[in-house]
Amino acid sequence: MKRMIDKLLPDVITALNKSVSCVTQNSVRRGSAMVGQQAVVNVLENLISILFPGCHLQHDSSGDDLSGALEKMAINLTDQCHKSFEHQCSIDICPEGCDDCAERAREAVATLVKALPAILSILRKDFVAAYEGDPAAKSTLEVVMSYPGVYAVIVHRIAHCLYKSKVPLIPRVMSEHAHSKTGIDIHPGAAIGEGFFIDHGTGVVIGETCVIGKNVKIYQGVTLGAISFEKDAEGHLIKGIQRHPYVEDNVVIYAGATILGGATKIGANSEIGGNVWLTHSVPPGSKVYNQQPQPFIRAADGMWKTVDGPWDDFGAGI
Amino acid sequence: MKRMIDKLLPDVITALNKSVSCVTQNSVRRGSAMVGQQAVVNVLENLISILFPGCHLQHDSSGDDLSGALEKMAINLTDQCHKSFEHQCSIDICPEGCDDCAERAREAVATLVKALPAILSILRKDFVAAYEGDPAAKSTLEVVMSYPGVYAVIVHRIAHCLYKSKVPLIPRVMSEHAHSKTGIDIHPGAAIGEGFFIDHGTGVVIGETCVIGKNVKIYQGVTLGAISFEKDAEGHLIKGIQRHPYVEDNVVIYAGATILGGATKIGANSEIGGNVWLTHSVPPGSKVYNQQPQPFIRAADGMWKTVDGPWDDFGAGI
Amino acid sequence: MKRMIDKLLPDVITALNKSVSCVTQNSVRRGSAMVGQQAVVNVLENLISILFPGCHLQHDSSGDDLSGALEKMAINLTDQCHKSFEHQCSIDICPEGCDDCAERAREAVATLVKALPAILSILRKDFVAAYEGDPAAKSTLEVVMSYPGVYAVIVHRIAHCLYKSKVPLIPRVMSEHAHSKTGIDIHPGAAIGEGFFIDHGTGVVIGETCVIGKNVKIYQGVTLGAISFEKDAEGHLIKGIQRHPYVEDNVVIYAGATILGGATKIGANSEIGGNVWLTHSVPPGSKVYNQQPQPFIRAADGMWKTVDGPWDDFGAGI
Repeated sequence: MKRMIDKLLPDVITALNKSVSCVTQNSVRRGSAMVGQQAVVNVLENLISILFPGCHLQHDSSGDDLSGALEKMAINLTDQCHKSFEHQCSIDICPEGCDDCAERAREAVATLVKALPAILSILRKDFVAAYEGDPAAKSTLEVVMSYPGVYAVIVHRIAHCLYKSKVPLIPRVMSEHAHSKTGIDIHPGAAIGEGFFIDHGTGVVIGETCVIGKNVKIYQGVTLGAISFEKDAEGHLIKGIQRHPYVEDNVVIYAGATILGGATKIGANSEIGGNVWLTHSVPPGSKVYNQQPQPFIRAADGMWKTVDGPWDDFGAGI
Repeated sequence: MKRMIDKLLPDVITALNKSVSCVTQNSVRRGSAMVGQQAVVNVLENLISILFPGCHLQHDSSGDDLSGALEKMAINLTDQCHKSFEHQCSIDICPEGCDDCAERAREAVATLVKALPAILSILRKDFVAAYEGDPAAKSTLEVVMSYPGVYAVIVHRIAHCLYKSKVPLIPRVMSEHAHSKTGIDIHPGAAIGEGFFIDHGTGVVIGETCVIGKNVKIYQGVTLGAISFEKDAEGHLIKGIQRHPYVEDNVVIYAGATILGGATKIGANSEIGGNVWLTHSVPPGSKVYNQQPQPFIRAADGMWKTVDGPWDDFGAGI
Repeated sequence: MKRMIDKLLPDVITALNKSVSCVTQNSVRRGSAMVGQQAVVNVLENLISILFPGCHLQHDSSGDDLSGALEKMAINLTDQCHKSFEHQCSIDICPEGCDDCAERAREAVATLVKALPAILSILRKDFVAAYEGDPAAKSTLEVVMSYPGVYAVIVHRIAHCLYKSKVPLIPRVMSEHAHSKTGIDIHPGAAIGEGFFIDHGTGVVIGETCVIGKNVKIYQGVTLGAISFEKDAEGHLIKGIQRHPYVEDNVVIYAGATILGGATKIGANSEIGGNVWLTHSVPPGSKVYNQQPQPFIRAADGMWKTVDGPWDDFGAGI
């Protein structure tokens, strides 16, 4: 085996070096300059366990030195943001000029640390929404410890704060970690009001320019996405515009609904039914549902016939 | 950086302590009393590797001392259940009184250990259902090692046993671990018969009060959920009732179907088509399908016209 | 507790040994002969970090000895493939005979190592497709570091190469790792052309016999699956046939679409709308969409009435 590999290696190595360098040029050229996915995830998990001791780690860190832990996290994150700004500068001509990278990183993290109390008070309203929104919820701690929708929102509130400070890459790596863990894909750019609850959540997609009001509740498989064929006269993708829907206060969107387009507004207090596919706006108080299909039954004569529903009294117990 | 953080810290710390204590009061007050998510997951993974040596870990533990491993797991899990019962007592006035917590934990784990042989014999039928239900399955070992639907069911059979013993939090943390790993969200409360197979599984949601018969097969994206607007005359959420569907024996439910409501029964031997949205019962032997859409084609003249399908003979090879 | 467990143990142990041995017989009989899920995942992650240094690990490994790392990975993977071939031989009478297992493992890994440059050049086109296909993408590095669809395709190109060498189990364990991490379930058998992009991706299922052309773009929740009731005259599942769709070049398939059947061809340059459920072929240039539902509004008088849409001018700002 070893011999065969040895024979193959030189050509493969050359190809690899060539291939790799064209993909992650900068990280290769500048050694360990760029932070890896895992490093970002570690800082994120670290911050979350500072915010909610004993919920996600093996032990309750409340005995530890909180300020020390917070400071360590902040210095770590600042270093990663610094590298991330530098990397961005190296691929596009940074308008602010590279000297600002260190300063911008410090400011981004300071802004996040300052915002933590405000973030926590919004999250408390999210937790209450989750607890009250799900009949199966037994306690707030259960919600914080085990609800994927709650975890995704915790990560989003942190990543969104870094996104607003224009930190490259890191907010997106954080949100993709939450996506991987929960199946809920919230772009760090989305603006989401308090009291937000995603139940179950697998398959949820919330796009970069979404604007969501207060006390909105959505279920698994809901997409708030872009209409991909929004192109200009020359047929180029239009960038930097509102690509994703507005969802106003107190809207409920049920499993599998797909709502697309930057001109689409879901009016306050509306209810969107399961599997509905919607690319235009609906006024406040709307209820949008798909027609239910007529079921068919194979009769004794082997023929198919329609049957009027419902059959809540057909008496097939279990 | 350090200086800036130092300046911010006092206020932030105060806010954090205040914020945190209102969320996870008990775990903070009682130091490491509450078990973290990760600790529960470790015991779960440990039990699974005892049940299926060599399938999920790096090595086959069959050489190890099985009874020793089992005993260690049981003592560990008992400790976690004990803390979990105590935590529950501390947030609601525990009807049984706190002295029972230790005893209830011991009983819950003993019940689980006693049930392991029965659980394994049910799981064997689940494995056979997976192997026979998927033309792509090459061996039972492949099914046990790599099928997410099988992993989710293994975890469910364990968590459901603890749920029946009324252990707080832990069953839900276990099922959410499976949810995170597989995208399959089965509430530990669901009652599921033998020979159950979930293929692919991402996005599947099975609610707390679901009752599923024998040899049921479901596909990715299927929801067996509650109709959220089940409220009483005063408009309060009705609790403690049957909120989720009954699914009888030998039913097949295809990708993306959403079946809602505690009064909804899917009769035995029925087939529910992809993306169907159903909130009423159907009798045994039903086949429920959505109408297929008519495709549109842009013709040479730039106009759209409908075309009759199917076109299995339109000859566009690949 | 300990006493209770001790009392239970003998019976349980007996049952466990019996139960386990019927599930993973071989791995139990042959000690650590069979590789565990985690061992396969480690080699896979190791290979990916060799291909894309600094993207997924904590540090950039480009400083390390590339050829050494590659050789270590290859020897490791060969050992796992060897055990996997042996296991397969032990459950079915291996046509080639067990002596070939070691040789077949060496050849499979050599084929993969030789193919790495070609795989990387295809992946480069996939990365470009992702970067150009998503208005939210800020850089290629962001795409490689954080896009789940890109990660799933990286793993698929590796697993598919081992699948073509008929390595048992391992390709499937690799693809299920990607499924667990991304919610994207691509069977290692699927044949997928260059420039392939899956956006968001949670809930995507691509079956074993799918054939997908160049520059195809699909969204979350898309299923390219089998029609399960394809049975022969005696009612047995038909195996070894084309069970999954053909998708030709430049097709776009939007969120939640379900396309089933081995006789189903999606003609080149077609567009399949969200939540469409399709079991027959459509010609090139087709656009297939579901009708949008008419929304209902509760009027002041408490009655429901339909309203003509769209309401992009109903003026409900946010």
